[in-house]
Amino acid sequence: MRRALMLAANGPATGVNPRVGCVILSGPNTTSGPNTASGPNSANAEPIVLAEGWHRGSGTPHAEVDALSNLVARLGPGAARGATAVVTLEPCNHTGRTGPCAEALIAAGIARVVYAVADPGSHSSGGAETLRAAGITVQGGLLARESTDFLGDWLVAARLGRPFVTVKWAASLDGRAAARDGSSQWITGGPARLDVHRRRGAADAIVVGTGTVLADDPSLTARDAAGDLLPAQPIPVVVGRRATPDAAAVRRHPQPALFYATDDLAAVLADLATRGIRSAFVEGGPTLASAFVAAGLVDEYLVYLAPTLLGGPRLALGDIGVDTISGQRRLTIDHLERLGDDVLIVARPRIVATTSTTKGA
Amino acid sequence: MRRALMLAANGPATGVNPRVGCVILSGPNTTSGPNTASGPNSANAEPIVLAEGWHRGSGTPHAEVDALSNLVARLGPGAARGATAVVTLEPCNHTGRTGPCAEALIAAGIARVVYAVADPGSHSSGGAETLRAAGITVQGGLLARESTDFLGDWLVAARLGRPFVTVKWAASLDGRAAARDGSSQWITGGPARLDVHRRRGAADAIVVGTGTVLADDPSLTARDAAGDLLPAQPIPVVVGRRATPDAAAVRRHPQPALFYATDDLAAVLADLATRGIRSAFVEGGPTLASAFVAAGLVDEYLVYLAPTLLGGPRLALGDIGVDTISGQRRLTIDHLERLGDDVLIVARPRIVATTSTTKGA
Ligand SMILES: NC(=O)c1ccc[n+]([C@@H]2O[C@H](COP(=O)([O-])OP(=O)(O)OC[C@H]3O[C@@H](n4cnc5c(N)ncnc54)[C@H](OP(=O)(O)O)[C@@H]3O)[C@@H](O)[C@H]2O)c1
Ligand SMILES: NC(=O)c1ccc[n+]([C@@H]2O[C@H](COP(=O)([O-])OP(=O)(O)OC[C@H]3O[C@@H](n4cnc5c(N)ncnc54)[C@H](OP(=O)(O)O)[C@@H]3O)[C@@H](O)[C@H]2O)c1
Repeated sequence: MRRALMLAANGPATGVNPRVGCVILSGPNTTSGPNTASGPNSANAEPIVLAEGWHRGSGTPHAEVDALSNLVARLGPGAARGATAVVTLEPCNHTGRTGPCAEALIAAGIARVVYAVADPGSHSSGGAETLRAAGITVQGGLLARESTDFLGDWLVAARLGRPFVTVKWAASLDGRAAARDGSSQWITGGPARLDVHRRRGAADAIVVGTGTVLADDPSLTARDAAGDLLPAQPIPVVVGRRATPDAAAVRRHPQPALFYATDDLAAVLADLATRGIRSAFVEGGPTLASAFVAAGLVDEYLVYLAPTLLGGPRLALGDIGVDTISGQRRLTIDHLERLGDDVLIVARPRIVATTSTTKGA
Repeated sequence: MRRALMLAANGPATGVNPRVGCVILSGPNTTSGPNTASGPNSANAEPIVLAEGWHRGSGTPHAEVDALSNLVARLGPGAARGATAVVTLEPCNHTGRTGPCAEALIAAGIARVVYAVADPGSHSSGGAETLRAAGITVQGGLLARESTDFLGDWLVAARLGRPFVTVKWAASLDGRAAARDGSSQWITGGPARLDVHRRRGAADAIVVGTGTVLADDPSLTARDAAGDLLPAQPIPVVVGRRATPDAAAVRRHPQPALFYATDDLAAVLADLATRGIRSAFVEGGPTLASAFVAAGLVDEYLVYLAPTLLGGPRLALGDIGVDTISGQRRLTIDHLERLGDDVLIVARPRIVATTSTTKGA
């Protein structure tokens, strides 16, 4: 499975499709059936790697199909008969631009399938059942944690049917995004701003409100320390009813901007998902950020805190619909880092276990 | 000098007087005068320790006098003649409850004095000059940084004529001290609250505004995890014109509380200094904390940030008189720490080099 994960890493980190790797091993490594498949009593020889494959992005073969065709190219038709396929994601069950992988594995005569993470898609899941129904030994959950972390935003996007949403803000130690008169250059220093650009470049889309466009006319590009464009540029997305001026910098972005004249954030995200955008980097301002928080649509927070005090009314986060302490939005800090003079806190919503009040449940 | 610093550490960490240590060594360790005193050409034998001493607090002998009397007790009168005194703080020049140390060293016949940190007091400084005028070789600045750090709040208090002021607040990641309805229990967790109590116990005084007393009726004691009183308790100080109710918990504090019916914070601090209070721990609320910041009376910030979002109007810090970004109060982060789920940021005002606009200056 570790090898399969390494292969998966060759795939594309953005876009609609996940990064998946597959290794085909000799033999099912089992003597008498599913129950002893991974038992210590197996006296079989060490399995050997017959073929490998990975998914290269939308429209290209899935990892399992890629590995099977590499196997046939190497050892000829029928070579997969009785072999084991180790794959990082549950083989898909639906026919997209490519046929379902579950069918391909069955047709090739694979005897055993080991996968890490269950397919979260409502259309594509069910592969394991299809395989089992065809008499194949199926084992899920191997290296599940590593594989879940590796799939990251794709998995969230697939589960929720919307992009993975990161909300970023930069603030003084007392939580202000600007001084009283609106001036804010600079609160954070060079290393923090560079970190923001690097993360922008890793996102599929960068989202701002019309307020920020009208106030700052930002270019919304991802740039390096010299101010030059990074290779990958997020698609700029502007949300709000007010019009963006024809001369706005965002209209000269290397990626054509998307404009949504609405305040329905869930609808915006759903539309972005259909465009293959699996990660959205929300960069403000305070009104839009607060609306995302209030709507419960945030998967990750990036808070850049500068060692400075500003006081005054310009808060990095406004009202988020919390009235009393029991309604607070608890987070978990994933990562704490000093960036030059500043501090970066990376946090995500705390998953609260809900206790059922139904008797006996 | 390292030995002298170790001796100094035996002294009291709170109160009007500093912790000072003194070691008396044989010989001036010099062949022909001040310029070669510490030169590599000195062919003298290794100096040996003749006596040691330290200051035990207000009204007791200073470190030099303590060391000299230990020397006399051990080796008889005249034993200090031609010897070297190594002392962590410049010998004092004024007559307080004890005579000036400079005179005592001269009278004892000391030939050479080495000290770490210059005496910052306006009444007590000038000891080095007095010693030099008496023909003694004087060298200052040895291990100055370590000794300055060691003297800590005493040195700040002595230089500024007021206690060292620490302002603490606890806030959500978006800078709120409470939810909209004022509820705030709890934002930070147990480890952070325990840290606050430990630091309270290390301060001479704990300062709050009448707003906090009237809203929360806090006990202002320093307690351990079990809720029991720590050995050292800060003197509670309440600032503001409104009266504190007779039944207020602060009136049952193990230390009699001080009440200042004023908003003149500099005057409050000056009075605290005359009472021997050299460190003040300002614990709120937002109005008082902001007033300390606005007045430029803060030496250290303790910001406990909890991974939670509250939004709304109850800010940990209110207005501090900053209108535009160039007026921001920049800080330097001294220390960043995770305390349970929370983050503690310890910062102090950034010392900005002022460039003179006077021609040729
Ligand atoms: N410190 C930072 O990290 C940071 C980052 C970015 C910006 N800023 C600062 O923020 C300021 C702009 O603040 P802002 O709050 O006005 O800008 P904003 O949040 O970018 O835009 C606010 C606008 O977003 C639109 N919007 C879309 N969906 C919404 C929803 N669900 N709820 C509410 N509004 C929604 C509304 O536009 P319509 O009214 O047009 O419908 C609203 O007026 C600028 O001064 C900028 O410098 C700071
Ligand atoms: N999160 C935290 O770390 C923390 C810590 C402590 C308190 N709190 C919360 O803070 C709330 C109380 O807030 P608060 O701001 O009203 O309390 P506060 O800051 O303790 O008290 C404000 C009062 O301080 C007096 N004062 C003295 N010198 C002043 C000056 N130079 N400028 C202005 N005022 C001065 C004034 O009293 P007079 O009007 O009587 O003259 C003023 O009304 C409570 O709800 C409490 O729970 C939070």
